[in-house]
Amino acid sequence: MSHFFFHGADTVELAGTYGTPLYVVSEDEITARIREIKSRFDGRHERCHTHFAAKAFLTKDMLRILKREGVGLDVVSGGELYLAREMGFPADEIAFHGNSKTEREISEGLGYGVGKFVCDSLDEIKLIDEMARSRGACPRVLIRVNPGVEGNTHPHMLTSGGRTKFGLPPDLLRQAAAECMALQNVTAAGLHFHVGSQLMDPETHLEALDILLGIIKALRDEMGFETEILDMGGGFGVAYTPADKPARIDDFMTPMVTRAEEFCAANGLARPDLIIEPGRYIAGPSGITLYTVESVKEIPGVTTYAGVDGGYPDNPRPALYEAVYDAVIANKYGADAAPVKNVTLAGKCCESGDVVIRDIMLPDIERGDIVAVLCTGAYCHSMANNYNKNPIPAIVMIKDGTPRLSVRRQTYRDIYACDMT
Amino acid sequence: MSHFFFHGADTVELAGTYGTPLYVVSEDEITARIREIKSRFDGRHERCHTHFAAKAFLTKDMLRILKREGVGLDVVSGGELYLAREMGFPADEIAFHGNSKTEREISEGLGYGVGKFVCDSLDEIKLIDEMARSRGACPRVLIRVNPGVEGNTHPHMLTSGGRTKFGLPPDLLRQAAAECMALQNVTAAGLHFHVGSQLMDPETHLEALDILLGIIKALRDEMGFETEILDMGGGFGVAYTPADKPARIDDFMTPMVTRAEEFCAANGLARPDLIIEPGRYIAGPSGITLYTVESVKEIPGVTTYAGVDGGYPDNPRPALYEAVYDAVIANKYGADAAPVKNVTLAGKCCESGDVVIRDIMLPDIERGDIVAVLCTGAYCHSMANNYNKNPIPAIVMIKDGTPRLSVRRQTYRDIYACDMT
Repeated sequence: MSHFFFHGADTVELAGTYGTPLYVVSEDEITARIREIKSRFDGRHERCHTHFAAKAFLTKDMLRILKREGVGLDVVSGGELYLAREMGFPADEIAFHGNSKTEREISEGLGYGVGKFVCDSLDEIKLIDEMARSRGACPRVLIRVNPGVEGNTHPHMLTSGGRTKFGLPPDLLRQAAAECMALQNVTAAGLHFHVGSQLMDPETHLEALDILLGIIKALRDEMGFETEILDMGGGFGVAYTPADKPARIDDFMTPMVTRAEEFCAANGLARPDLIIEPGRYIAGPSGITLYTVESVKEIPGVTTYAGVDGGYPDNPRPALYEAVYDAVIANKYGADAAPVKNVTLAGKCCESGDVVIRDIMLPDIERGDIVAVLCTGAYCHSMANNYNKNPIPAIVMIKDGTPRLSVRRQTYRDIYACDMT
Repeated sequence: MSHFFFHGADTVELAGTYGTPLYVVSEDEITARIREIKSRFDGRHERCHTHFAAKAFLTKDMLRILKREGVGLDVVSGGELYLAREMGFPADEIAFHGNSKTEREISEGLGYGVGKFVCDSLDEIKLIDEMARSRGACPRVLIRVNPGVEGNTHPHMLTSGGRTKFGLPPDLLRQAAAECMALQNVTAAGLHFHVGSQLMDPETHLEALDILLGIIKALRDEMGFETEILDMGGGFGVAYTPADKPARIDDFMTPMVTRAEEFCAANGLARPDLIIEPGRYIAGPSGITLYTVESVKEIPGVTTYAGVDGGYPDNPRPALYEAVYDAVIANKYGADAAPVKNVTLAGKCCESGDVVIRDIMLPDIERGDIVAVLCTGAYCHSMANNYNKNPIPAIVMIKDGTPRLSVRRQTYRDIYACDMT
């Protein structure tokens, strides 16, 4: 049996060198995915821009890659904006999202001069105007629309439809658009929509886009509101397991851009600049997580529980969304490592919901084995936590087969760094 | 309208002084709840000991209170044990739980001389024996039993029954008990069970206890295994909303201790020492979270979304368990602040699941209002995270009506402290 290599690096060696649990992220894969998107979207169509959704995966190293590749950034908080600023990320390439921005965050966004504020309420638009006035600024504002389309995904990942907190329904949107045009210190620049996350085909994106195009025309016809920018969000799915068959970015972009161009041409509208905001699509398949098996417990007739040294603290997605992952035993890999056992990879938290993968067929699993859980590059490190006071794992970045420590492992001391003595 | 006071402190003032989101914890309430339990359990019956479940809420200040009140500690990781050691918590009063302890953690437990290891697999028992041998130690071991009883709670909080990762079913238990007795460097001390969390009445606890008592007798009769300690876990519910009517600790303990004593007397067994491990019962109602309302968006016919400045990062329980909370507007409190509006308190994360409370009737809510979400003392700070790079809130402790900063708010810089430059 051989070892599982990830983008040229022996994962068993990585586990030995850096310890487990360990996030391993391929810079090459991230770069390749960014370039795929840029060539199919930014490069193929005029005035089309890709922004990376920072919430999926944000580190200093990641920002360096994004800067180098000329990708914009979708931030959703002052904490994300802080790092962009620290790393000298161009302010104009930043869109500031969020349904509940604080005054401090708006002030930070204005202070850095972010390219666009994506607004979710009339309250927010008025506040930005008021705060911009005292600075003599006039930031561009996009209004988030709730197109009412429900994507085929987990309810927590639905961001459109009847009961989501996001966006404005048509009536409120008209009010907000009128407000934007009337206010002196905001520039009404356009609209934003986001149908949901981890969507496998462009169907709901197209459905929502059609609704948005209708709205764009109506706003122009009714009140002369010109949508110069249409931010179409993200939600492009990835394959967590071989059962997932996601469309490539091309399958989303070609029909969407075509649809927008045709509609605008037919209705005497200038086609807006288009933005997309992939996060998972870029980061997800670029990362894996390595664990050590600490104990194996075979419950006859049920499953074999293999307890690993991580779980909920480094990846809350199975508990949150019943997310399903694929895994391999890194030290028992290859054609001769046949799956022989129904295994449940149990996380180490004192929490029944802390199960990394239920019922996966694996080779004979033993204490000391290294397990690689695949496609954990998005929403794992970014959702990591110290539940049960487990330290957050290190991140190792692989480039050209060479690993480097990108984020160090937390120490026990780090966990209590804010406790007053 | 007046202000909402929490244990003598004006919460609107606290929000002003310390900022929001803010955890506010009453030392007086924690102390009162510990004393209630100790007087009804440790103080009323011989050889009965209360351990606090550290996973519910663990800070330096909390450990100081626990030490002062003479409560033991249930830890589930090296990170929890670290703080106990740092604060000089008596090792003998510590039980080390966890279904997937790492070698490092076992080494740390042996190094500090923890009173009991609660073991979840044969692998673990053998490893402890092996590691204890090289130190010439012989730690006490409790074996975790899965009694197969399912409590009436959220599936994630079920810790007993067919598909939980926790504990050993009867056959494996016999093997583990035999192993414990045969091995030279572990002391077979007893058994542990935990039926689930947030249980409202003692029914399932009693059902599980009956099964355990039968097992204790069987192990004695069949193999001479003496259960000197029976750790009965926690799971004692609290009232998150007025609809919850939890039994008091007395309602659990009186029948449970009686049942154990009667069974043992009838079967010629010495009644084991009894341990309970409340966490939520002590910490939950002792804390609240204060938020500022950042925007209000009324969606006609649906709800009024009030976006607050926290949510999932400081309290993932609504997203994880569909947990329901109660809240008040701290600056619009009292008999004249009538609930007039159906409000959904939306968290600030870019995540549809980030809703703090759905459909709660509140007074007329506006931007700038301070909202107090009640009963957040357990599993909020301990599950806090930096999702969307939101800083983890500060904790203010109230004693005799006087606030003190117990844990400072994270800075943006703290969030990236482990990023290599």
